[in-house]
Amino acid sequence: MSADCYGAPERQRMMFTLYGDKVSGNCLKVMWVADLLGHAYHWIDVDVVTGEAKSPDFLAKFPMGQVPAADFGDGRRLAQSNALMLYLAEGSALIPADDFARAQMLQWLFWEQYSHEPAIAVRRFQMFYLGKPENEIDPALTTRGQAALDQMQRHLAGQGWFVGDGLTCADIGLVAYTRVAHEGGFDLAQWPAVQAWVGRVEQALGMKG
Amino acid sequence: MSADCYGAPERQRMMFTLYGDKVSGNCLKVMWVADLLGHAYHWIDVDVVTGEAKSPDFLAKFPMGQVPAADFGDGRRLAQSNALMLYLAEGSALIPADDFARAQMLQWLFWEQYSHEPAIAVRRFQMFYLGKPENEIDPALTTRGQAALDQMQRHLAGQGWFVGDGLTCADIGLVAYTRVAHEGGFDLAQWPAVQAWVGRVEQALGMKG
Repeated sequence: MSADCYGAPERQRMMFTLYGDKVSGNCLKVMWVADLLGHAYHWIDVDVVTGEAKSPDFLAKFPMGQVPAADFGDGRRLAQSNALMLYLAEGSALIPADDFARAQMLQWLFWEQYSHEPAIAVRRFQMFYLGKPENEIDPALTTRGQAALDQMQRHLAGQGWFVGDGLTCADIGLVAYTRVAHEGGFDLAQWPAVQAWVGRVEQALGMKG
Repeated sequence: MSADCYGAPERQRMMFTLYGDKVSGNCLKVMWVADLLGHAYHWIDVDVVTGEAKSPDFLAKFPMGQVPAADFGDGRRLAQSNALMLYLAEGSALIPADDFARAQMLQWLFWEQYSHEPAIAVRRFQMFYLGKPENEIDPALTTRGQAALDQMQRHLAGQGWFVGDGLTCADIGLVAYTRVAHEGGFDLAQWPAVQAWVGRVEQALGMKG
């Protein structure tokens, strides 16, 4: 699929500066949506491992001190990966037209930030980027990460996408850290419906074939 | 202000069953929005202290195993406090009409679930409901909670509401645990702009006067 399948006819394509780190799935989510919809952005690297988002310069622009963050150049600045994705995707097929389907998409995105990312992304960050040995990692991160993957497996056993019958922001938000869950010690072979869905989302995002 | 200020002309008032626990700010958020907008709901208590949301019966209906959760009676079921609030509020003044203002509202709601609730609500739950002595509480909860209140103080020092010039779902989402932060050991007198804003939101929700 190409960007043309998703391009937003109802609004202008946007131009902005996107601050992020490509090791961060939260940042990649926003980049993928921008690429898919043909928004134009200038990427500026902010190193999350050394805590560059907590520097006085960055905090003066973005008080939340986190990436991704976008500057639209006219005073509009926005942070939080899922809020950014949804803003860029307004008017496109990545946001369902039906109001209940939109609510389901938001349900999964809020669940992702509360129950998925704080376990799966954090465990990966500690193992893969900080090089923490597995026996020093809080076992609660493992249990919570497995529970999140179980939840996704149950849902995806019955349907191909998180909401409705095609790619939405819910899939993009959830795939960001799920596709690299092995870097946090989670073997997706144990969650086959999740593994198959990761392949579908990657294909829709143009990562394969 | 009354519900009529916020009532949603573009859609029917809804009827649903709302599962929740009144000790949970996440559940109260949804109840406040429903009350303000005149939606009709039947409330069913689910005890979060004893973990009733993890019972097989509840999980069969709501696999995420969390409250609040709503059953609209026609197969539509939805969980996650902020997704529920936003669904109930569609078409009302609680959601800004401008797309960037909507994105800012979502930014604060995602921030609330990631950076505010897991510190302030969790510390309160441990102190107030589980009776944990303060010296047994993870000091990171204190630091993170203070940082969240600092963030809110900086924002509210310059404006009366989180987004735009009136009450939105961002305020309702954020006030739920902020107004009871003292039960988690945070004295709001240290964050005067936050304290004043809590009063404004409570008044808008009809809690005072």
